[in-house]
Amino acid sequence: MGLTQDVANFVSKTRYRDIPTEVVCLARGFILDGLGVALAGSTDDCARILQAHVRQIGGREEVTLLGTGLSAPVPKAALANGVAGHAMDYDDTQLSTSKEAVYGLLTHPTTPVLAAVLATGEKEKIRGKDFLLAYILGVEVECRIADAINPHHYQSGFHSTATMGGFGAAMAVGKILALKEEALIRTLGIAASMASGLRENFGTMTKPLHAGRAAENGVTAAWLAREGFTAALNILEARRGFYNAMAGGYDESKIAGRLGRPYFMQEPGISIKPYPSGSLSHPAQDLILDLVKEHDLHAEDIESIEVGTNSNVPNALIYPMPKTALEAKFSIPFCMAIGVLERKAGIAQFKDRKVRDAKVVQLMKRVSLYVDGELESLGYDQVRSRIRIKLKNGKMIEGRYDVARGHPEKPMSWAELGEKFKDCASLVLPRKHVDEAIQLVARLEQLETLRPLLRTLAGGKDRRAKRLKKSGSRKWSHTRKS
Amino acid sequence: MGLTQDVANFVSKTRYRDIPTEVVCLARGFILDGLGVALAGSTDDCARILQAHVRQIGGREEVTLLGTGLSAPVPKAALANGVAGHAMDYDDTQLSTSKEAVYGLLTHPTTPVLAAVLATGEKEKIRGKDFLLAYILGVEVECRIADAINPHHYQSGFHSTATMGGFGAAMAVGKILALKEEALIRTLGIAASMASGLRENFGTMTKPLHAGRAAENGVTAAWLAREGFTAALNILEARRGFYNAMAGGYDESKIAGRLGRPYFMQEPGISIKPYPSGSLSHPAQDLILDLVKEHDLHAEDIESIEVGTNSNVPNALIYPMPKTALEAKFSIPFCMAIGVLERKAGIAQFKDRKVRDAKVVQLMKRVSLYVDGELESLGYDQVRSRIRIKLKNGKMIEGRYDVARGHPEKPMSWAELGEKFKDCASLVLPRKHVDEAIQLVARLEQLETLRPLLRTLAGGKDRRAKRLKKSGSRKWSHTRKS
Repeated sequence: MGLTQDVANFVSKTRYRDIPTEVVCLARGFILDGLGVALAGSTDDCARILQAHVRQIGGREEVTLLGTGLSAPVPKAALANGVAGHAMDYDDTQLSTSKEAVYGLLTHPTTPVLAAVLATGEKEKIRGKDFLLAYILGVEVECRIADAINPHHYQSGFHSTATMGGFGAAMAVGKILALKEEALIRTLGIAASMASGLRENFGTMTKPLHAGRAAENGVTAAWLAREGFTAALNILEARRGFYNAMAGGYDESKIAGRLGRPYFMQEPGISIKPYPSGSLSHPAQDLILDLVKEHDLHAEDIESIEVGTNSNVPNALIYPMPKTALEAKFSIPFCMAIGVLERKAGIAQFKDRKVRDAKVVQLMKRVSLYVDGELESLGYDQVRSRIRIKLKNGKMIEGRYDVARGHPEKPMSWAELGEKFKDCASLVLPRKHVDEAIQLVARLEQLETLRPLLRTLAGGKDRRAKRLKKSGSRKWSHTRKS
Repeated sequence: MGLTQDVANFVSKTRYRDIPTEVVCLARGFILDGLGVALAGSTDDCARILQAHVRQIGGREEVTLLGTGLSAPVPKAALANGVAGHAMDYDDTQLSTSKEAVYGLLTHPTTPVLAAVLATGEKEKIRGKDFLLAYILGVEVECRIADAINPHHYQSGFHSTATMGGFGAAMAVGKILALKEEALIRTLGIAASMASGLRENFGTMTKPLHAGRAAENGVTAAWLAREGFTAALNILEARRGFYNAMAGGYDESKIAGRLGRPYFMQEPGISIKPYPSGSLSHPAQDLILDLVKEHDLHAEDIESIEVGTNSNVPNALIYPMPKTALEAKFSIPFCMAIGVLERKAGIAQFKDRKVRDAKVVQLMKRVSLYVDGELESLGYDQVRSRIRIKLKNGKMIEGRYDVARGHPEKPMSWAELGEKFKDCASLVLPRKHVDEAIQLVARLEQLETLRPLLRTLAGGKDRRAKRLKKSGSRKWSHTRKS
């Protein structure tokens, strides 16, 4: 059995009852997180443009565009919700099975699969269990295909979420449509000829577009395969197939026989972003929040804050004195200052007006970032971070975190996930719907229909539709995000 | 000025009056040919599935699906017409500027660009001149980008029409939408992150899908850029950009300063396929047709036909005794036999029943294909072919062709193009519309509106729509074309 058939066989034969309970529990968390970041992202300029684009094409208003009060045909809803899911770069990240893997090589697994499953699931009127099964299988396929790819793929310029998210989305949709192994093989063949997305587009709206396209492509590939559309039967492993063309090969030992053994969600795991900022700031952000609460610190007590990391961090977090919210996401002084002043680091904190706030600016001046010799010597596989707070009374407070909340070694509790979801979803949903959505995802496997969940996620029809209509007529700024 | 800006600048600044008349004349021929093969291809199973797919999504019925009597939103019409254009592998092929280029490296230039221009042009109500200008610029960009790419691109498994057709389509649509240079640069950035398509899918329906996707992607990229969607500003030449990621580089001397100098259509040129069969059979097909007419040969007079070529040909044309029309397209004995018996080699000849016809089978047995030492020594840059016909009366008739009709060295006349168009278009259009379409394309630059042309190309609404509805409910055969 070749690799492509292997993948199709795994998707075709796995039933809900074959999935370990632990995996279902993890999946609920990733789904809640994915829905939250997509709801927040639906307000981003790039998502707004896509929503207007989808409306311009028109078509059957059959499934929900999250948070907008709008509906669209299945592939277009997958597109728009996928773009929203990655718009803030706040969605989850798969870890690697090998320590020496290149940072960033792998995918943001949830967004493409979730967007495709949500749209298809609504149309096909599936139960919560079917939703979970399709999502879990899609993420498994996506993560294993990405884990096995030759790192040359990423190094030469491809964006893994873009190029491999579509396989996950395609298999998830194929599962919902109950495609047989033979049709799933063709689905992979079609999806591979849609795989695309370049890293040079990082820092622009085209990066989130990658995730949306992966979701849409997954739907399209499965739909065409269902109608008998033909494709190669060995697209992953073939000489002129996916791995060879797009990466110069793959490591078979990382995928052959490893689908669901264990599930990638269990080991090595998927990391949830606790803050809407550059991930290299997260351990230090986590630590400052804990220290501030533990010692009840206030800005006026603090003389200085020193943050020590390995040398990767100052290379990426390059703003000692940020001027905008976007810069603040890559600024250790801002992350420390806002943590002390607001004891939070959510969407509401990363705002232009906060960055310019006099208290924040004052405190940022007392924060420094340095390369810590000991942490540097421990390598780059984790973002180990040390904080030393010197108080005006001469006292010194210290701490060190090697990972942040949300990492599989330090998973977020359901309550913490709920807090992040509220922070995100409140941008577009009334509080009542936010709370209902959390409760519904908590018992997703018991839902006989997705309808109540989708109703809570749809967003206020009149309010949003009006806003959209208005914004559809203006042009967005062309500034490239850095 | 970087390469990406160079391309955008060329598209943005070139006006209709800057285009040499010779290029306009050539373009009319390629457009007529592209429309014809798309009309014929609209009856192919893969095109039918796409038409049903487009109908399933729904949306604004704003532009024409060629030959079907159906309408669809612009991007979806570009998709369906693009698939139809490449469905029979009967569309044109760009030549290379270097003799040593790998055969097949380059694109089928017309289909992706024409499908995008046709759909966008209908919606935007452009004149014939705008149509020609957009088409010519799109093809120029596509051909130059493809000509410059490192051949590793094709060798490693990418399909050039798929991966670079989108750039041509995007620039053509951008021209119609009057995007400025800055927006055209972003259009290229977005289009590059949609570029995709693997050769392992050759011989399946996914190959024509590549051309349709390229057309649709071009429309989508230009639409998003128009709305202010951001993207990298140097996607072609950047380190993590198109050429590096997808080919490991490019030959700058083949594109820098060469856009429109001369137009690629003029030099090295674009080849039109004279027959709906494997292109390696075309010189011999051409020759047998000429010999048969010149000497008024009949099957019963012929003892044997020997066809000599270089060793590439028997490697590709592998069916000495084909059983199906698809096999017959890769069979020298069939091409020779049908040429003698019917003195034609059009769509009507490559049919299953012809392949099984007793007269054809008898004559095929008298045809042999051999590697000719002299032709082999001349290299593989052309498909030089020799025919020796031994008559029963002992007489010997010989000839040699190095290229077939349709090659830039032996261009098809307008009358010949018209014959091919009739052969193709008659599958779906009434004779009256076929003739009108030829006349309208002949004076395309004079048309104040495309409406009359589109009316002739639309196809019988009732007849086709009914047929489609019927076929939409059945499943197509899953057999992979070889």
